[in-house]
Amino acid sequence: MRQKAHGGNLAWAAALAGCPPDAILDFSASISPLGPPNSAIAAIVSQIGSIQHYPDPDYSELRLVLSHYHQLPPEWILPGNGSAELLTLVGRELAQLDTVVLITPAFGDYYRTLTAYDAKVLEFPIDLGTLGWEVKISPPTSRSCGLLLNNPHNPTGKLFLRDAILPYLEQFALVVVDEAFMDFVPPDEEQSLISVVQDYPNLVVLRSLTKFYSLPGLRLGYAIAHPEYLGKWQLWRDPWPVNTLATAAAIASLKDQEFQRNTWKWLPHARNQLLEGLANLPGLQPKNSAVNFLLVESQHSTSQLQQQLLQQHQILIRDSLSFKELGDRFFRVAVRSESENQRLLTALKLVLS
Amino acid sequence: MRQKAHGGNLAWAAALAGCPPDAILDFSASISPLGPPNSAIAAIVSQIGSIQHYPDPDYSELRLVLSHYHQLPPEWILPGNGSAELLTLVGRELAQLDTVVLITPAFGDYYRTLTAYDAKVLEFPIDLGTLGWEVKISPPTSRSCGLLLNNPHNPTGKLFLRDAILPYLEQFALVVVDEAFMDFVPPDEEQSLISVVQDYPNLVVLRSLTKFYSLPGLRLGYAIAHPEYLGKWQLWRDPWPVNTLATAAAIASLKDQEFQRNTWKWLPHARNQLLEGLANLPGLQPKNSAVNFLLVESQHSTSQLQQQLLQQHQILIRDSLSFKELGDRFFRVAVRSESENQRLLTALKLVLS
Repeated sequence: MRQKAHGGNLAWAAALAGCPPDAILDFSASISPLGPPNSAIAAIVSQIGSIQHYPDPDYSELRLVLSHYHQLPPEWILPGNGSAELLTLVGRELAQLDTVVLITPAFGDYYRTLTAYDAKVLEFPIDLGTLGWEVKISPPTSRSCGLLLNNPHNPTGKLFLRDAILPYLEQFALVVVDEAFMDFVPPDEEQSLISVVQDYPNLVVLRSLTKFYSLPGLRLGYAIAHPEYLGKWQLWRDPWPVNTLATAAAIASLKDQEFQRNTWKWLPHARNQLLEGLANLPGLQPKNSAVNFLLVESQHSTSQLQQQLLQQHQILIRDSLSFKELGDRFFRVAVRSESENQRLLTALKLVLS
Repeated sequence: MRQKAHGGNLAWAAALAGCPPDAILDFSASISPLGPPNSAIAAIVSQIGSIQHYPDPDYSELRLVLSHYHQLPPEWILPGNGSAELLTLVGRELAQLDTVVLITPAFGDYYRTLTAYDAKVLEFPIDLGTLGWEVKISPPTSRSCGLLLNNPHNPTGKLFLRDAILPYLEQFALVVVDEAFMDFVPPDEEQSLISVVQDYPNLVVLRSLTKFYSLPGLRLGYAIAHPEYLGKWQLWRDPWPVNTLATAAAIASLKDQEFQRNTWKWLPHARNQLLEGLANLPGLQPKNSAVNFLLVESQHSTSQLQQQLLQQHQILIRDSLSFKELGDRFFRVAVRSESENQRLLTALKLVLS
């Protein structure tokens, strides 16, 4: 079995660790340890009887809930089978432009979708010291280019300011911002571009319920963009991409303000505990993060670290081999509960000693 | 709210009938009334805890079960988010050929996917009297053409013989057979091309769990084709298209031989009851069918019939307006339980009198 270039491949990890998949303590997938919300589980159970009907092809109820949540007309919202499905549609759209600018290191699936549609890709790297970036293409060239980035950025955990992205909206034909982790930033600090989407017909925002609500098995994301784009993309895909039970869980999760508040309360403290613990270990330098994972620079080979943690402690961390800018000297860990974070720190200490 | 060109749009029907969606007796979606299997429901409930993990990107367990079910190596099987998702990938593949031959009347989503990839489509109609068809393109022209058909055929209910399709496999660059309803044909009568797929690298078979197991809300289908095609298509889509709960339900359903036998036992009698009942009504001529729906030729406007049945009896039938060859003088009804079939017959009698 080959390892896929993404966190959360428990089948692969379990085979290496010699234990069942659910015995693995998974720090590789950047999923909240607080979820799924009980409200989501209850909604799934209550809707099991509905699986014998086709989903509403308009996903009207879900879009209405999202519309309230983001203060946007429903026509600007398109649910998808995970934001990964929407990324494929966006990739096709971007590939029609002369060049697609990618801020790197970038999620492996960005390359997959851009390659699938023969896009010409130009990479602009983030400075791994300052975590700043700049795209050195200006009008008129930029007017036939697309820009794809994510904010907060994976795997660095850096939150870019809205104001740092806005100028590109004036210059590029299409700007796609993958905000899969934005929910982790509390409302008074978030930098989402959703608030300006109605001002920019060339802006697409992708969101995911996977990470914040801990629902990766359900596949639920959405795109926010001009209705003309969304209408076109709907014809590029099948009529019922989102499963009925995923829809029910999404509706319940989005309404669950208590779960949302609990997450914003838990994260800063748990993240700080993990950050400080990692910084105190020999040869490890974690970076500050706005979200629920930490990128760690390591003086040790992280593939070796990963293997030792799996085999000796049944703990899975995310190596960075799929991010070619990072290679074997970085790894990424999710922030989990304080006791689980402590288990990771203790295991790392043993492995590094 | 516009009506979508497909059965099973209960939100639209309920608005017209002035009742909640679950009060509608739905003859429009060709879904088995026997399902979902209890085994599938139990599997969903038992797997709810797994939604906090990503699906296995290889879908190894599901592919192994399908491999046993069809006596094929797992490498020849690709699960999808409903066969509709796989149809989109197939549409892109077909569109790369000079011409795509479509046997009509055809499912609306065939046109959607072929249009989405700018395919050149050539239609060959089924004779609505004999229900026979023939594609009059031979080599060398046919060698750069694709052929897309479904068997058993929707909406006529006709089961084409395997031997009628085999010659096209020798002549066409790619032959795609959508067997979404083949499960309804008992094993000793089925005409699936899966048995020859390893002999023809230019054959793709699409299957669905939606209709036979009554799981349209879950989205579960699969493609069977040469591993080279499947590998390519996987790069055209996101890495986790199939939801964890859908996977669990599929595995349980495929193993549920009792459910399968019960369906084959129920169908012939219930279908015959409905066929004879319809034939005895004034102005209606139902066609013989190998599957769980009947196409009915009508001397009355079927849009009017549909509206009257909805408003007076909260019963939904499938009009044929989306099949341009059929227009307003045909409708399609699913075979349901004997008491539900009787309810439809009684309502039709009242409406037609």
